[in-house]
Amino acid sequence: MRKTLIINAGSSSLKWQLFEMPAETVLASGLVERISMPGSIFTIKYGDHQKFETIVDNLDQAHAAQMMLDELQRLAIIKDLTEITAVAHRVVAGGETFKQAVEVTPSVLEQIRELSSFAPLHNPMEAQGIETMAQTLPNVKQYAVFDSQFFTDLPEMNAIYSLPYKLTKKYHIRRYGEHGISHGYLTGRAAELLKRPKDTVNLVTMHLGSGASLAAVKDGKAFDTSMGFTPLTGVTMGTRAGDVDPSILPFLMDQLNISDPNEIMMMLNNDSGLLGVSEISPDMREIKAQEKTNPQAQLAVDIFVNRISKYAGSYLTELHGADALIFAGGIGEHNVQLRQQIIDELQIFGVKLDADLNAAGQEGVISSADSKIKVLLIPTNEELAMVRQVAAIQ
Amino acid sequence: MRKTLIINAGSSSLKWQLFEMPAETVLASGLVERISMPGSIFTIKYGDHQKFETIVDNLDQAHAAQMMLDELQRLAIIKDLTEITAVAHRVVAGGETFKQAVEVTPSVLEQIRELSSFAPLHNPMEAQGIETMAQTLPNVKQYAVFDSQFFTDLPEMNAIYSLPYKLTKKYHIRRYGEHGISHGYLTGRAAELLKRPKDTVNLVTMHLGSGASLAAVKDGKAFDTSMGFTPLTGVTMGTRAGDVDPSILPFLMDQLNISDPNEIMMMLNNDSGLLGVSEISPDMREIKAQEKTNPQAQLAVDIFVNRISKYAGSYLTELHGADALIFAGGIGEHNVQLRQQIIDELQIFGVKLDADLNAAGQEGVISSADSKIKVLLIPTNEELAMVRQVAAIQ
Repeated sequence: MRKTLIINAGSSSLKWQLFEMPAETVLASGLVERISMPGSIFTIKYGDHQKFETIVDNLDQAHAAQMMLDELQRLAIIKDLTEITAVAHRVVAGGETFKQAVEVTPSVLEQIRELSSFAPLHNPMEAQGIETMAQTLPNVKQYAVFDSQFFTDLPEMNAIYSLPYKLTKKYHIRRYGEHGISHGYLTGRAAELLKRPKDTVNLVTMHLGSGASLAAVKDGKAFDTSMGFTPLTGVTMGTRAGDVDPSILPFLMDQLNISDPNEIMMMLNNDSGLLGVSEISPDMREIKAQEKTNPQAQLAVDIFVNRISKYAGSYLTELHGADALIFAGGIGEHNVQLRQQIIDELQIFGVKLDADLNAAGQEGVISSADSKIKVLLIPTNEELAMVRQVAAIQ
Repeated sequence: MRKTLIINAGSSSLKWQLFEMPAETVLASGLVERISMPGSIFTIKYGDHQKFETIVDNLDQAHAAQMMLDELQRLAIIKDLTEITAVAHRVVAGGETFKQAVEVTPSVLEQIRELSSFAPLHNPMEAQGIETMAQTLPNVKQYAVFDSQFFTDLPEMNAIYSLPYKLTKKYHIRRYGEHGISHGYLTGRAAELLKRPKDTVNLVTMHLGSGASLAAVKDGKAFDTSMGFTPLTGVTMGTRAGDVDPSILPFLMDQLNISDPNEIMMMLNNDSGLLGVSEISPDMREIKAQEKTNPQAQLAVDIFVNRISKYAGSYLTELHGADALIFAGGIGEHNVQLRQQIIDELQIFGVKLDADLNAAGQEGVISSADSKIKVLLIPTNEELAMVRQVAAIQ
């Protein structure tokens, strides 16, 4: 039986799932948190709700990968490493180069590194993660699945910025988007839940986590997305500012006496968003806990809801309506109150939640029977979407 | 009788109107085009549809101002210059300092210059225009009326960006907006046309000219606006890019080997927008003329309509509906087809134009009887709004 290992390497975490294919059965899944920090947390879930967890100081990416492979054998999830026939890695930016999943060759790895200007926080780390796994499992094919891929065929009207057209073309400056694996999965799953052919559904998909983005989906294909040239822009996120006037860059460089614009970009990416406004945390749960007592917490929530509902409203506008609004991502799937606040702000569209269905938080319809647009909650499943994309090219 | 001269100095033009107050009668109005260029065009309209026009090479701002005053006397519009008791100048950026029109003192002039970082294309020129008039009419009070003023009390949620809050506060980084004199005038005039008290109207005002901006107006007050920290952002404009991902700045500095981010900002302000996308002209009329035969002209029109309708849709969303949508500005007042295209894109809100009223292009309602939201065409009148603001503080 073929087993495919799906890897999602973040700045301080490593998420993975092991699938048996073609059955798409999840044999095990795991998470390493606080990579290269004191008290790295290593967790595996497997079998019938079994869980193994241990804490190791300063576990780096290479040792975390080795430990994952060791534990898969020790816990008898696999007998030996030859059972793993493919490893697939999530890569944020595929630029205009990668329109579908690919097997990683040395030249592909080089291209992923070159695309770092489109995702400076993500691509270098992901390239490193691929190299680590290739060294650990030298006889296994490595694949890359791109998070920008769902958006490569956006209509040009929405893909490009209003820059000098020659520059747009020469330097491939466009809206690349992110969370494409998720928005693509949500589109397919929504079509199933709505019992509609995928190429007929019009949707506004909202992937709301510490990174957050919205997409307009027309006839099952991406029509617009809130993230831009990089994952900085769009709605307010955990630490990312979302949309800002670029004029702030030269202004702040001047005021703060900084000569490298990348220092300002780091600030916009890492110290802004919910964390920047609230001065509490990038985590919506911690901000929500202080919403009633701390005006900055309230302001951060208000801004988050406002930016999301304005994007959703603009997408419903350009789609001339939609079959459904989709909530997904850590916040979208778990924050009952925020879902209600966002839908309240969309009241002009006649969209309403069913309070009980919203509170229950199960996959499926959570709107009321008289809502003019359906609202669906869909736990996103990027790993399943990835394993399917890899199976399609194997 | 008091006469007030209203001045609107642009980069290559000088617009003016002479009002008799308090009657608000326009005694004369004029325009100098192609300032400091070969073939400067000097025009005065006065009396009963009388017009005087002449062409002078390389007329600079100071000589244009002197010529205006000379012609006012020669054409017997005024007997002598002492009849002019006030001169008011439009200033784009008033920052958080100027919440209403002010008499210009040397310190006010200095502050206007200091606020240039919020409007690098406008404030320096406007300060120069004020100095020129003060020298030409040394005994007459000069006033400044600020285009940002209508937006100084935006709700904080919409005023600020999701930056580190301490920076937001320390450096007054916020959405200052522009065209505030126009959006304020449109709000007042819309309330009159709707026969409603001004503090009860909810509107989406669209000032669409070579600069273009939208505002959400709630209870007669500014609630949101598309222009940002500077007049660069928001919708696609004649030469300004509108919203773009700031990550493009360091990317292009790197690719083009440019060390000063202001060079990129100049490109975003002067070479982008409709001109950048179409590679034809910043003028919508010239682009429209090629729309059917030139794909880039079509793309520029599509982007213009898309960005405006998305902003309008997002504002209707956050306002939970509105009493009216307002078209104003050179394009908004005169381009019948573009008004139709924008309203077509807002069909989800049940808004519809009356084809005959739209084609007639008169001030007032241009929506059909069954439109769920009224659409008004209002020729904006920034000069009238300015003279009223100056009268209020005289």
